[in-house]
Amino acid sequence: MIHTLHIETKQRDEIIDITPKVSDLLRQEPLEDGLAIVYCPHTTAGIAVNENADPDVKKDILMRLNEVYPWEHPKYEHAEGNSAAHLKAITVGSSQTLLVAGGRLVLGRWQGIYFCEFDGPRRRQCLVRFIKG
Amino acid sequence: MIHTLHIETKQRDEIIDITPKVSDLLRQEPLEDGLAIVYCPHTTAGIAVNENADPDVKKDILMRLNEVYPWEHPKYEHAEGNSAAHLKAITVGSSQTLLVAGGRLVLGRWQGIYFCEFDGPRRRQCLVRFIKG
Amino acid sequence: MIHTLHIETKQRDEIIDITPKVSDLLRQEPLEDGLAIVYCPHTTAGIAVNENADPDVKKDILMRLNEVYPWEHPKYEHAEGNSAAHLKAITVGSSQTLLVAGGRLVLGRWQGIYFCEFDGPRRRQCLVRFIKG
Repeated sequence: MIHTLHIETKQRDEIIDITPKVSDLLRQEPLEDGLAIVYCPHTTAGIAVNENADPDVKKDILMRLNEVYPWEHPKYEHAEGNSAAHLKAITVGSSQTLLVAGGRLVLGRWQGIYFCEFDGPRRRQCLVRFIKG
Repeated sequence: MIHTLHIETKQRDEIIDITPKVSDLLRQEPLEDGLAIVYCPHTTAGIAVNENADPDVKKDILMRLNEVYPWEHPKYEHAEGNSAAHLKAITVGSSQTLLVAGGRLVLGRWQGIYFCEFDGPRRRQCLVRFIKG
Repeated sequence: MIHTLHIETKQRDEIIDITPKVSDLLRQEPLEDGLAIVYCPHTTAGIAVNENADPDVKKDILMRLNEVYPWEHPKYEHAEGNSAAHLKAITVGSSQTLLVAGGRLVLGRWQGIYFCEFDGPRRRQCLVRFIKG
């Protein structure tokens, strides 16, 4: 079974903590041990695992990614004008694989699961599948 | 069982849509629900999931990755001269995990699976395994 | 079962080959065919798969990542001062998925599994789970 999370983003670039939502889904499953696959079906957004404590980390990540992959570039040819968002999505990745043990997500002390919006604001989806193992 | 796809690249930097090939492999399998792991066994190429519509997206991605990780750099020490290709491979990733449902790949409307060549032209392989779940 | 590898890093930026350690764990398992998930529970370190031959590749990767995501930046706001490490960790990724066949890791001829330290030296952990499939 594939679960669908619905996420409404509010900025062009935004990092949203979806850890509680993924944990809630896991609680509804009989899974004790295995994997959680968190998958982004969009091409201008991605999934990352990173720090969940100081919100300035998110700001710094988005700030520097925006410098490395600038929104405006004289050589971009893509008519929609959002090539930077595709580049950022490829850099963070379209999915993350998490470990599950004892019915819970195995995350490091400071880790959270992030939906990374790079071309918002939009209504987005995020797919989650749990695998026994 | 691990499936092997054979890919012949024609440029130094090239993004090749392998979605139809992965879908063909899946059709030969009895798998209804689970995962598809697409794995690149090379260190100067990678696998990405991104936009499958406007070909300019691919051009823009390769153009900007080439600026961020330039082929020539006064500080590169690797004798083979392809450190940029290793950097790009690490950025896009050596594998992608896809969801399978109802015997089909679960991809977003605009998503395709890409073999990303960063040191071609070469004869390359791509490994695919399906996992029940 | 989740295995834990203990890694002691010695530099701020360091790429450490953990392939032998992951192979050792696999030898202790009854697994013939499936996946190996190598997961980093830290937010300023990551896991990559890349070249295991010329050590200059590692140097070049760390050198250029350090230019793209500089340690010092006038716009960083995160008080700990290690935003560059978070950016590098997101770029390489917090986990890697490997294929297992015939009781062995399926790696390309030049590939190794790397623990990537971006804010060392520190005592780090790396989690490994094998999945039958």
